[in-house]
Amino acid sequence: MTYALYYWPTIPGRGEFIRLAFEDAGVDYVDVGRQRGAAAVAEMINRGAHFAPPIVETALESVSQVANILAWLAYPLDLRPSSDRDFRRLVQLQLTLADFVAEIHNVHHPLGPEIYYEDIVDTARQAARAFRHERLPAFLAYFERSLTENPMGHDWIVGDGCTTLDLSLFQVMRGLRYAFPNAMRLMTTPWLDELVHRVAHRPGIRAYLDSDRRLAFNNDGIFRHYPELDEQV
Amino acid sequence: MTYALYYWPTIPGRGEFIRLAFEDAGVDYVDVGRQRGAAAVAEMINRGAHFAPPIVETALESVSQVANILAWLAYPLDLRPSSDRDFRRLVQLQLTLADFVAEIHNVHHPLGPEIYYEDIVDTARQAARAFRHERLPAFLAYFERSLTENPMGHDWIVGDGCTTLDLSLFQVMRGLRYAFPNAMRLMTTPWLDELVHRVAHRPGIRAYLDSDRRLAFNNDGIFRHYPELDEQV
Repeated sequence: MTYALYYWPTIPGRGEFIRLAFEDAGVDYVDVGRQRGAAAVAEMINRGAHFAPPIVETALESVSQVANILAWLAYPLDLRPSSDRDFRRLVQLQLTLADFVAEIHNVHHPLGPEIYYEDIVDTARQAARAFRHERLPAFLAYFERSLTENPMGHDWIVGDGCTTLDLSLFQVMRGLRYAFPNAMRLMTTPWLDELVHRVAHRPGIRAYLDSDRRLAFNNDGIFRHYPELDEQV
Repeated sequence: MTYALYYWPTIPGRGEFIRLAFEDAGVDYVDVGRQRGAAAVAEMINRGAHFAPPIVETALESVSQVANILAWLAYPLDLRPSSDRDFRRLVQLQLTLADFVAEIHNVHHPLGPEIYYEDIVDTARQAARAFRHERLPAFLAYFERSLTENPMGHDWIVGDGCTTLDLSLFQVMRGLRYAFPNAMRLMTTPWLDELVHRVAHRPGIRAYLDSDRRLAFNNDGIFRHYPELDEQV
């Protein structure tokens, strides 16, 4: 099976959660946006079946929504837990992580995705203060606890092997440290930090991070470093 | 199987998507929040396995996240399409609807869920204007098109029978007409309007809507009617 990924070519964004799964598993995939440009991604969206990228297409079907794509890929990519019950837990945590990612994005776009950050910096400062003090610690504590309370061990968040969710947590933790270095210094997440380290050293991920396929975080994506949103107030 | 639903007792909120599925299918469920109060819901959350309600519990497990709960219930409640491919499409659309619901909530809580509406009315006005002009028409056009392009017919959004997603769309459309009556009068959604009508007349739903189990929309929930957020500007 060859997979085609449709996602914007210049940001890691939500497409990165899919890229990490493909790269870890070492499967063949075509990164359409990076090979053929943003117009090819826009054209796929304009066909109307999907509201937004990332979209993954095979010869048989096309699938969107990060958690839905990862649930579909987890089995063929061998990145899923063994029981159905753990699989439901995996999807639940992946959806909670998606909620977290949406809230991280809302910090710099509090009035919706159509209004530019530069036009609402003061409003974003207020949103960032609430985020750093309330939501950031709440979500991190939840994932840290989920990891320490995994009955199958604390190396991975669900079951006893690496899943798509561990790869996604890696990306979110790295992104948060890029966007909010000061706020993150106040957080205590020893088990998540270990998990990030463990993921970074998996052969497929290490090769990917060293390649030019890996896109750096930047201020057009979800995780943006605006110093005024990360002040210690 | 007896199901226990944990959700806040005074708002329809995200719990309503689950209630509608139970009521349509006519299965036994205990609405814990309404029977034992909000403290019983808070206690369930404090156990730590789930970040937020709704949570559904059986003798075997507990499951959270609306789309994850509905994907799990769709089979035993006979509210799912017949093919795996259509099931993935169902989950994708359910997740896109969840994104829409989150954006609807953000209109009155643009700086995150911890800051009261009354403290940020002017900011919410700006968010509402962007929502009414950009996101509301975009999401509605997407769901309307998904319905008209369903190859199995236009009565239901995926496949040829009612699914959990049709019930959820009913709730969102009703909620939008409560919250944004002026903005909704400008939208053209003939097929979705027919679907709402069709869902309202299903025997289980009709009996539910006529019962005192059905909670009215109110200004503590997701869909809130603040006239200042629905002005024609």
